[in-house]
Amino acid sequence: MSTAPRIDVASVRDALYGKWKDERVEGRRVAAQPRFQGIPGQSMEDHRARVLEQLGGLVEEGAIQRAFPKGLGGGDNHGGNIAAFQELVYADPSLQIKSGVQWGLFGAAILHLGTREHHERWLPDIISLELPGVFAMTEIGHGSDVDSLGTTATYDPEAQAFEIHTPFAGAWKDYLGNAALHGRAAVVFAQLITRGVNHGVHAFFVPIRTPEGELLPGVGAEDDGVKGGLNGIDNGRLHFTRVRIPRQNLLNRYGDVAPDGAYSSHIESPGRRFFTMIGTLVQGRVSLDGAAVGAMKGALAIAICYGSERRQFPGPDGRDTVLLDYGQYQRRLLPRLAETYAMQFADHRLLETFDEVFSGAGDTDENREDLETLAAALKPLSTWAALDTLQEAREACGGAGFMAKNRLTGWRADLDIYVTFEGDNNVLLQLVGKRLLGDYAAQFSGGDRAALARAAAEQFSERVTRFGLRRIGQSLSDLGQVSRSVDSVRNPEAQRALLTERVQAMVADVALALREATKDLPKEERAAAGAAAFNAQQAKLIEAARAHGELLQWEAFTAELAAFSGDTLTVMTWLRDLFGLRLLEKHAAWYLVHGRLSGARVEAVSAYIDRLVGRIREHALDLVEAFDLGPELLRAEIATGIEAERQAEAQRHVESQIADGTRPVHEKELRKRARS
Amino acid sequence: MSTAPRIDVASVRDALYGKWKDERVEGRRVAAQPRFQGIPGQSMEDHRARVLEQLGGLVEEGAIQRAFPKGLGGGDNHGGNIAAFQELVYADPSLQIKSGVQWGLFGAAILHLGTREHHERWLPDIISLELPGVFAMTEIGHGSDVDSLGTTATYDPEAQAFEIHTPFAGAWKDYLGNAALHGRAAVVFAQLITRGVNHGVHAFFVPIRTPEGELLPGVGAEDDGVKGGLNGIDNGRLHFTRVRIPRQNLLNRYGDVAPDGAYSSHIESPGRRFFTMIGTLVQGRVSLDGAAVGAMKGALAIAICYGSERRQFPGPDGRDTVLLDYGQYQRRLLPRLAETYAMQFADHRLLETFDEVFSGAGDTDENREDLETLAAALKPLSTWAALDTLQEAREACGGAGFMAKNRLTGWRADLDIYVTFEGDNNVLLQLVGKRLLGDYAAQFSGGDRAALARAAAEQFSERVTRFGLRRIGQSLSDLGQVSRSVDSVRNPEAQRALLTERVQAMVADVALALREATKDLPKEERAAAGAAAFNAQQAKLIEAARAHGELLQWEAFTAELAAFSGDTLTVMTWLRDLFGLRLLEKHAAWYLVHGRLSGARVEAVSAYIDRLVGRIREHALDLVEAFDLGPELLRAEIATGIEAERQAEAQRHVESQIADGTRPVHEKELRKRARS
Repeated sequence: MSTAPRIDVASVRDALYGKWKDERVEGRRVAAQPRFQGIPGQSMEDHRARVLEQLGGLVEEGAIQRAFPKGLGGGDNHGGNIAAFQELVYADPSLQIKSGVQWGLFGAAILHLGTREHHERWLPDIISLELPGVFAMTEIGHGSDVDSLGTTATYDPEAQAFEIHTPFAGAWKDYLGNAALHGRAAVVFAQLITRGVNHGVHAFFVPIRTPEGELLPGVGAEDDGVKGGLNGIDNGRLHFTRVRIPRQNLLNRYGDVAPDGAYSSHIESPGRRFFTMIGTLVQGRVSLDGAAVGAMKGALAIAICYGSERRQFPGPDGRDTVLLDYGQYQRRLLPRLAETYAMQFADHRLLETFDEVFSGAGDTDENREDLETLAAALKPLSTWAALDTLQEAREACGGAGFMAKNRLTGWRADLDIYVTFEGDNNVLLQLVGKRLLGDYAAQFSGGDRAALARAAAEQFSERVTRFGLRRIGQSLSDLGQVSRSVDSVRNPEAQRALLTERVQAMVADVALALREATKDLPKEERAAAGAAAFNAQQAKLIEAARAHGELLQWEAFTAELAAFSGDTLTVMTWLRDLFGLRLLEKHAAWYLVHGRLSGARVEAVSAYIDRLVGRIREHALDLVEAFDLGPELLRAEIATGIEAERQAEAQRHVESQIADGTRPVHEKELRKRARS
Repeated sequence: MSTAPRIDVASVRDALYGKWKDERVEGRRVAAQPRFQGIPGQSMEDHRARVLEQLGGLVEEGAIQRAFPKGLGGGDNHGGNIAAFQELVYADPSLQIKSGVQWGLFGAAILHLGTREHHERWLPDIISLELPGVFAMTEIGHGSDVDSLGTTATYDPEAQAFEIHTPFAGAWKDYLGNAALHGRAAVVFAQLITRGVNHGVHAFFVPIRTPEGELLPGVGAEDDGVKGGLNGIDNGRLHFTRVRIPRQNLLNRYGDVAPDGAYSSHIESPGRRFFTMIGTLVQGRVSLDGAAVGAMKGALAIAICYGSERRQFPGPDGRDTVLLDYGQYQRRLLPRLAETYAMQFADHRLLETFDEVFSGAGDTDENREDLETLAAALKPLSTWAALDTLQEAREACGGAGFMAKNRLTGWRADLDIYVTFEGDNNVLLQLVGKRLLGDYAAQFSGGDRAALARAAAEQFSERVTRFGLRRIGQSLSDLGQVSRSVDSVRNPEAQRALLTERVQAMVADVALALREATKDLPKEERAAAGAAAFNAQQAKLIEAARAHGELLQWEAFTAELAAFSGDTLTVMTWLRDLFGLRLLEKHAAWYLVHGRLSGARVEAVSAYIDRLVGRIREHALDLVEAFDLGPELLRAEIATGIEAERQAEAQRHVESQIADGTRPVHEKELRKRARS
């Protein structure tokens, strides 16, 4: 046994639960019930029927009401609602996403884009699942670019009705959960046209099926059929041929049409109005961020448990070596464990920010914008990391990892789509990049490169500390000189400075390139040249946004360290260092090219990572025990101790043969004896 | 339209087909028949039944006989057999792998490990599928480490029989195709014990079921159930309780037991004997390498076709921008296109080497060892690259990519296991690393660091040119000084030198570290210290093996350029450069740390890659057309031109509204007019 310090698992567990621990525990209680769990290999038809029934079960359990108004049976608890929702990933991601469609998208659109009359009229039936619905935003031809949707809602003052219409095949609504079978109504996003003017995309409540499931006149539907995952959800397409709905079915919180066809909105700018409406839907991204982290925790709990029991290839003592004692194996799994912790703590920050805005406690334009940027920065990183971690865990478990009963492949298949829905990850990161660029440009007008660089330094030290974190020191510029050994990068201030400076310099570089591309051009050439320059810089800008997200995760992990003490603090600090230093190693080329790290220090970083994974290996089981995922949540045969039992049985067999003198001698041994 | 040179698609197509074009075309003719194709969403039971029937169809088509002896109805055509087999990935990977189990593993084991009597007795029924069989090597407790299998075959001279026995649960054979349902016999790998001596792992023919499908006495089977993919194959577990088989059922090509129990082998060393037996099974790795490249071609054909039609977000001309015109999109797909070409050409070299050895034309120990090293270097890189490319293609196609009808997710799920079966990728790369290390150590005995470095330089310039490629120049050491601009790395000699030197230096570093760790220790401490040092170097050694594989791919691509001329040569050279320069960019940190590239040159490499992807973009459709994958092979709705039709319809709608004067003016436009 190791004499290394043991961590206080309970305090780490509570930190991982975060502010809404009660709701998370409650969400897990639901997920632990067999009736809410997926059955590998079920046919699409049976799986869809099962998930619909499960949705009814969630209503009975009181599992989905939290975010709705108290007056309608809800709890006005926005953060707790998402926290509990995130835990459903342990039951079945199909259940998670279908419930997200019903209450987090369809219901939430009516809650956030509609007004009191809409709430009273539809929310009770939506909450009770009397009225299953569809969130009809995406079209075949337009996914990420919602502003350009083709579906129209044209107001007819004679009939006091909107005519919902699909003008061409590319404007069919597609990939919609509940559309193929179960949806009875849809919130349809369409260009609002009245008096010959297009006021942009608005949301409309459109009945689509009778209670018996027959499509209403003018509504067409197609089944999307089998998908790469999430086959418990009946995704499909909808199209509308001049379907009339009453004027009152416009969800009119941000824009309304009077009986005579006059349009009005309290937000004058059509652009800001659009983004405000779309912004109310940020909760999907917040939800997915934590759901992705949940799957990472599950994957690592399984792979690390198995890897600490499984043995392969004889070691110097003659007995097979435990997988987790291999250097390469530690390198594969433990940095991902550190990343999971960082992403979990970052998700807590995101959820807290979300709750502040949606509870009304901090509902300002600036906070909403920060929330959207934060969600757009974190959701891509965590959903990609989930796929990466699930795959590495799968491979680390070999053939056993490929068996559906060990969960990893099912999560991998289901979570695949998380990286492109609720905002394509690359598009989201580009949004973040544009925000960073905008903040940067706002600081700067005219001047030379030196002024620009100064402005960048000022701007970014502020920007990156926006989320309540400490200001970085002023010693950035001479960091390369003062710190030559690994000691300096174990220092959190140095990690912060290096991560911060990278974001700052990358955005400044892009900004400079964009400015250079257009500055001496005549006005009429600037748009095209600017677009071309932006396109050339696109990959770099996205990389800068990613770096920004990584910094936020590092900051969140670092802030969380205050919750620990003693040996636990020591181990958690190692884990944070592992996360931070892996970022430096991953981006070593950038640090070297830009003179921020010397070659010797990059090598020292890698060597220190090797030492860190060796130390953390001793705590790996404790660190996954802190995830608090019992067998009822993991449900993976290889994480039940079965491999250790088999190893023990095999060892007993060998030992009893040796004791009996019945163990055959190996030809190799005979030849060795003959030689000596 | 672009005025850029167009490539000669036919000559590129033929280069991609390689030496066994006829067999590949024939394999595709089979794959194009609906009866051999997978049906997304089929239940496991139906899928298994369908694939079994398809296997019968392959026999009718004469699709699987090629590798067997002419005297038994085969064609003695080893290379052509694998080439045709690789193409089955376009039909259904379940069909591919189940046929691989029957004829490439079960049948091939009898062919290569058995002798004439075995061939005559069993091969005709195996070829005709009268006798479906199982390749029972892997155990629950031992996958990669075949040498340590627990199953025993103990000879009883009284009965002149072997007793096949599973001594503990960890020795159950697992993950075996055909084991759950269809297998009637198995080639079982077990420790051969006679006269109290264990002669190591040998293969035995063991009947397991009656023709009616009943398990024979002493044989137990379990169904592995649903897997992450390949659900058309009935994988399962087998275990044996003192099952007796005649002495003659030992596949005795490399080791035999006389009636009196005396063991004999023409290979004296048990270690070499084991590796010789295992080495005959290299064809699985060769097969998977090309199958993985096949899936990459399919993925890129789909994503590049779709990406060249799909539009999203308005560009400066007001119309939505074609995805493939986005800088980031080009960066995502086109380097993977270059990689696919490199891997295809490397697979051709592998298959030619395989055919030389197995046809007997070049069957020497050295060639066999080279073949095994080459397969162990290439299969990991291509199978991982396939998962990466399938995923990037899936994401690049957004929600459409997630629909089963667009093929990408199905391939992704099925090919997942390719990275850990037929040799876990990390274990294979470690084998390559050990071979590199062994070749290096053989050159060197005693001496100082300088001697060691000299030895390394000599050794490696030979080693890396082993596969028929030119020697690198002697100018390696001063490369850093002489070449400062991107011009120098466009030069293929410079690319070769940089890639070569990295392999060389990494292996030398590992060797030095291993030597330093034990050199002053007393003899009794060396084993443990050596094992610890090896473990510490494991990740680096695997990285060196990867670098070796990348170099081989680059060499294969470069050698292939001789087949082209004119504009085609220009474009193919860009593509080769893109592959080579992406390797330099990916490993930039190493080149910077080791002083082989300056920061300015690393930036120049990245900038030149950006230019290359822009140029290659104009040829992207031609480059995937050269894959020669018609709609009957791709079978992806989004690769049929449907998106271009939808875009055209939408565009016509807008134009007719404008012509009619019925297009609503946008509120944004009204406000802009009001302001000006």
